[in-house]
Amino acid sequence: MTYGLLKGKKGLIFGALNEKSIAWKVAERACEEGAQIVLTNTPVSMRFGSINELANRLNTIVIPADATKVEDLEQLVQKGMEHIGGQFDFVLHSIGMSPNVRKGRTYDDLDYAYLQQTLDISAISFHKVLQVCRKADAISEWGSVVALSYIAAQRTLYGYNDMADAKAMLESIARSFGYIYGREKKIRINTVSQSPTLTTAGSGIMGFDNLVDFADRMSPLGNADSSDCADYVITLFSDLTRKVTMQNLFHDGGYASMGMSFRAMKVYNEGLEYRDVKDDKTRRR
Amino acid sequence: MTYGLLKGKKGLIFGALNEKSIAWKVAERACEEGAQIVLTNTPVSMRFGSINELANRLNTIVIPADATKVEDLEQLVQKGMEHIGGQFDFVLHSIGMSPNVRKGRTYDDLDYAYLQQTLDISAISFHKVLQVCRKADAISEWGSVVALSYIAAQRTLYGYNDMADAKAMLESIARSFGYIYGREKKIRINTVSQSPTLTTAGSGIMGFDNLVDFADRMSPLGNADSSDCADYVITLFSDLTRKVTMQNLFHDGGYASMGMSFRAMKVYNEGLEYRDVKDDKTRRR
Amino acid sequence: MTYGLLKGKKGLIFGALNEKSIAWKVAERACEEGAQIVLTNTPVSMRFGSINELANRLNTIVIPADATKVEDLEQLVQKGMEHIGGQFDFVLHSIGMSPNVRKGRTYDDLDYAYLQQTLDISAISFHKVLQVCRKADAISEWGSVVALSYIAAQRTLYGYNDMADAKAMLESIARSFGYIYGREKKIRINTVSQSPTLTTAGSGIMGFDNLVDFADRMSPLGNADSSDCADYVITLFSDLTRKVTMQNLFHDGGYASMGMSFRAMKVYNEGLEYRDVKDDKTRRR
Amino acid sequence: MTYGLLKGKKGLIFGALNEKSIAWKVAERACEEGAQIVLTNTPVSMRFGSINELANRLNTIVIPADATKVEDLEQLVQKGMEHIGGQFDFVLHSIGMSPNVRKGRTYDDLDYAYLQQTLDISAISFHKVLQVCRKADAISEWGSVVALSYIAAQRTLYGYNDMADAKAMLESIARSFGYIYGREKKIRINTVSQSPTLTTAGSGIMGFDNLVDFADRMSPLGNADSSDCADYVITLFSDLTRKVTMQNLFHDGGYASMGMSFRAMKVYNEGLEYRDVKDDKTRRR
Repeated sequence: MTYGLLKGKKGLIFGALNEKSIAWKVAERACEEGAQIVLTNTPVSMRFGSINELANRLNTIVIPADATKVEDLEQLVQKGMEHIGGQFDFVLHSIGMSPNVRKGRTYDDLDYAYLQQTLDISAISFHKVLQVCRKADAISEWGSVVALSYIAAQRTLYGYNDMADAKAMLESIARSFGYIYGREKKIRINTVSQSPTLTTAGSGIMGFDNLVDFADRMSPLGNADSSDCADYVITLFSDLTRKVTMQNLFHDGGYASMGMSFRAMKVYNEGLEYRDVKDDKTRRR
Repeated sequence: MTYGLLKGKKGLIFGALNEKSIAWKVAERACEEGAQIVLTNTPVSMRFGSINELANRLNTIVIPADATKVEDLEQLVQKGMEHIGGQFDFVLHSIGMSPNVRKGRTYDDLDYAYLQQTLDISAISFHKVLQVCRKADAISEWGSVVALSYIAAQRTLYGYNDMADAKAMLESIARSFGYIYGREKKIRINTVSQSPTLTTAGSGIMGFDNLVDFADRMSPLGNADSSDCADYVITLFSDLTRKVTMQNLFHDGGYASMGMSFRAMKVYNEGLEYRDVKDDKTRRR
Repeated sequence: MTYGLLKGKKGLIFGALNEKSIAWKVAERACEEGAQIVLTNTPVSMRFGSINELANRLNTIVIPADATKVEDLEQLVQKGMEHIGGQFDFVLHSIGMSPNVRKGRTYDDLDYAYLQQTLDISAISFHKVLQVCRKADAISEWGSVVALSYIAAQRTLYGYNDMADAKAMLESIARSFGYIYGREKKIRINTVSQSPTLTTAGSGIMGFDNLVDFADRMSPLGNADSSDCADYVITLFSDLTRKVTMQNLFHDGGYASMGMSFRAMKVYNEGLEYRDVKDDKTRRR
Repeated sequence: MTYGLLKGKKGLIFGALNEKSIAWKVAERACEEGAQIVLTNTPVSMRFGSINELANRLNTIVIPADATKVEDLEQLVQKGMEHIGGQFDFVLHSIGMSPNVRKGRTYDDLDYAYLQQTLDISAISFHKVLQVCRKADAISEWGSVVALSYIAAQRTLYGYNDMADAKAMLESIARSFGYIYGREKKIRINTVSQSPTLTTAGSGIMGFDNLVDFADRMSPLGNADSSDCADYVITLFSDLTRKVTMQNLFHDGGYASMGMSFRAMKVYNEGLEYRDVKDDKTRRR
């Protein structure tokens, strides 16, 4: 179903890599809802993924930009506004990567140059996007900005490593800049804290599949997938949510408010039972 | 603008009193978006307010019911489903009242019979609505339920009295029942924590006008009014937010995430200044 | 180790049933730290448990009182102050019970008379204690009040039922009354959100043992037990924490800030594995 | 009053500049409670402040170290352990500084090299301290680590600038490392979110005095000062709080749980009144 929720709106979307990406789905849904968009990603991601294919299908362009570089962002914003003929009404930030995770450095053995990169790519880039947009007056009044986050910003998950700290900072940037941009231009800034999602980025996390299973059984509605997320983000870009800002919005089938579900506990109980069975076998030998 | 977001959906709306009511605006917006609704309120509120006028305009009926009485709710649900020809896709709970506030009993001098009424009307009624609906299988799969709350559930405001405890309980009920109804029927339950709003209910609170001024100057986007709230609630009733549940969603122009704004601090500073001026005059005499 | 942290202080302790009770341990530790205390519990609990033994050992008295009855509390406070020769410096509220849980009424089939009792016993009793104390001026300036809570106030656990709503309300009462009593008498009011604890009360919850196991493996420091809790509560009664108020303080070995630990995930993974093993056996037949 | 709460314990304290510093007060109180400590600060701060005086009085040494430099920290830890003859039982991190604030760069015009410094000094330094300590096995089992934070990590205050993001990251590091260090060595890590405090660091923030006034009137117990904070931190270093970890603990006289107090609203109301008075005068001319 489409509703024309974003009819006449123009958007800038960071982070579509391939058809698994949340940003990919948001781009598709935004266009279905009547928006015109500009896509962007790093040159490396453009080669590695299939964003050009998406651009063709959505009848738009991809402007390469490294979101950690202010000059790249300045050019992106200028070219994007030229292409689209005016200001952006919405922006999606879906960018995150930890070299510490990639190189297998655990959280008690961080490489601090890598940490700097984690922060630069996953959090500070969001500030840079906002600051560059503001200086270029690139977002229209009552515009909407969304960045994607994860519950690791509030609760520690083994293996998520320095990305947790980056997400905490990302959510803080949304609040800090949300105040500035809100009072000045009525632009709202929120983060969406999404269920663990089997994107290319997500797959990098150790033991991710079983964590996804756990989250799914904990959540009364099951995990939200990337299509669900796109639907939700569309509402945040629409004119119907104009007074929501500086919020971290959980979009996770209820996970964040669960202490323990019957379904998840059942698997856990069977794990305990299995241990007993194995212990028993060991003892009998 | 309308989008047909609720086309074909059916809803049950509690708490419309007069045109200032949030429930009133939600009813109007729901119908504009294509929904068919049933209105309900207590017999007393029906006489006191103008809900029949709204029902006429929206081409629907008002079914009187006291939401603290299970039998009333059972009849309401049955009649409502008959009128509407099937299950409800969404329900709005916008009910709250404190006899302690009304009778001027301060929080350190509560009348416990009144407290019981505060809870019954403002929180337990929500559980009753949900339990009655569930037993009658009155809400469709992937349906959406929203109750209106206020930040007093998290932070103490002088004069808000036992309503704070009721709102805390209300939000807890949304989580507790959200788990049950979610795993079983995929029905989501959320609360919307709205800016202080100049409804007939809000006006009962001592010093409410200046509090509204403070909230407005604290919020980068200004206070959300009841029309804004209706827009937001519509997105929560739509199919685009199906994986959001058990959440308390701040709809307040950014207020909840503010520590101090420049604009609010300015008035506060002038208050301090005024005190100095007055002290000075006093000393000169 | 003892430190004389509560030397010269006088306290009132609700809810000691037997040696498993948190209140029991708090009473013991308070006396070790130099306090003089008065114990209280309901007449039924006094018969069922062994609080008189504790009173003998601590050289004090038990004053029977039903904390849901204002008159009982008034008498308790008067007699307690007489016994102790003055005001109380600290109060512990460790009271909770749900007839719905006891009688096996699930959360979607609550008996509302029972719910009223759950709230009365587990939450409103706290307000009554505070209101009665305030009217009798029974707590000294800079006094400290603690009530015991549980994370179910924030996150839903299957089977915890209407106790979750009661705990949410309890924590709200701590805030609401904390403001009143703080500005007036500098008395602080906090809740301690304790690990699931194998007390007589805790054992009433369905599947509690395995939940305790899960919490223990999730918490980097393991679950906090009732002795740990007593130690912590002592610090909150001491003069060293005089500016902490209106807080819900997690005392749970880190549980509340955990998303997933390696140890807990391991058991969960084995549960998934066991399911595969069993499926495999089934398919082979 | 002293209790011997830290008898036999050894500690490492970062960030004492002068007698206004929270770290200064913590150092004094720790010694009063029986601890032996080592002080450290940057060479610049040592010259600028009076830490040597404190060291003399407490009969200990100051080891200069720049907490953003791993090598400095390694040497500090080694020398500190030598001086103290073993592992540390507690560590205080009280470090924060924003070149953006100092140089008057507003949050929508951040210098990104400065932001990097803000993070390095105010947040990443905490990770470095922990990682260096862990690699050197410098903290004893059941040891306690505290870092000082501020509510800007949760709520935006105009003028607090990029320090808000740094504090959000600091609190995240406490959680992330708290998990690691907890499961391994039972070491707990918490942040204390303190009232705005008139330290040398605090004074750098624009309009800080009136903010302190506002916070004081909002808080039922008034602001917590640095002596109060020292008392509280002592309890967190003691053996009585061994199961509290990964928490951000508000130590602020109740401020964080306040929506609006009568006292603060009164000043605000007078500010509105003053505006009316001034408007009136203007109109009459």
